[in-house]
Amino acid sequence: MAEDTVAAETAGPYAIRPIGRVESPLTDRERAPKQGFEGAPDVWLAFDPEVADGIRDLAVGADVFVLTWLHRARRDVLAVHPRDDPRNPETGVFSTRSQDRPNPIGLHRVRGAAIDGLRVLVQGLEAFDGTRVVDVKPVLTGAQEAGLR
Amino acid sequence: MAEDTVAAETAGPYAIRPIGRVESPLTDRERAPKQGFEGAPDVWLAFDPEVADGIRDLAVGADVFVLTWLHRARRDVLAVHPRDDPRNPETGVFSTRSQDRPNPIGLHRVRGAAIDGLRVLVQGLEAFDGTRVVDVKPVLTGAQEAGLR
Repeated sequence: MAEDTVAAETAGPYAIRPIGRVESPLTDRERAPKQGFEGAPDVWLAFDPEVADGIRDLAVGADVFVLTWLHRARRDVLAVHPRDDPRNPETGVFSTRSQDRPNPIGLHRVRGAAIDGLRVLVQGLEAFDGTRVVDVKPVLTGAQEAGLR
Repeated sequence: MAEDTVAAETAGPYAIRPIGRVESPLTDRERAPKQGFEGAPDVWLAFDPEVADGIRDLAVGADVFVLTWLHRARRDVLAVHPRDDPRNPETGVFSTRSQDRPNPIGLHRVRGAAIDGLRVLVQGLEAFDGTRVVDVKPVLTGAQEAGLR
């Protein structure tokens, strides 16, 4: 394929359409944990009926990555003090997990704990109630993704 | 915040704006490896000048997640035969890493190998030349994300 054709088909912007939403007791940014393993609650992922075929093989006990859209983020921020602590040196956002970044996609590694129709309970996801889910992917067992290489 | 307010601000669709592109020898879907650890090449990530402040702290030797937009994907597919092999039972896309899915965001765990201005060389990323990069995140050292819990 010619370079200019590739450029044309990939120039963006791209439209992300939510596939579901997070049902969480977290509603307050100040009190939310910074990462899921720092005391985030169990939350329900409520999927839209349109994607029922896509979630049919999700399983209790399996580890997945959940991708969300962090709708409260600032998209014009390129450097932050990590963990909102001014004592931490300002750092480029692509070296942090700040929600403030040009494309505020949240990446959460969680484990499925229960399934009830279109709703999946997952453990340890630090997102506000109402946050939209945009993708779910299995965690691969290959040595590279598991951090074992 | 009232439920209807949350709903309004999160309804989507959301606009993803690319922040850079992949420079890869891979140009052919049929020959591309399915996952990065299956022989994918080293590739350069060429970032846009607008996000220079965001990448300034990327480091050689650090593991990061690179998020891409898989522009050749089919977005109307909810179930696939994994690895394009008809012998594998049809599976909901959210239990696979198929590029065909409602929001075709690619998730690639890679290691920084070299940095040259706005370009970062990473090892083992299975994306076609010209694929747009939409985010970069550090791999956390917490036990949960490392798969060690």
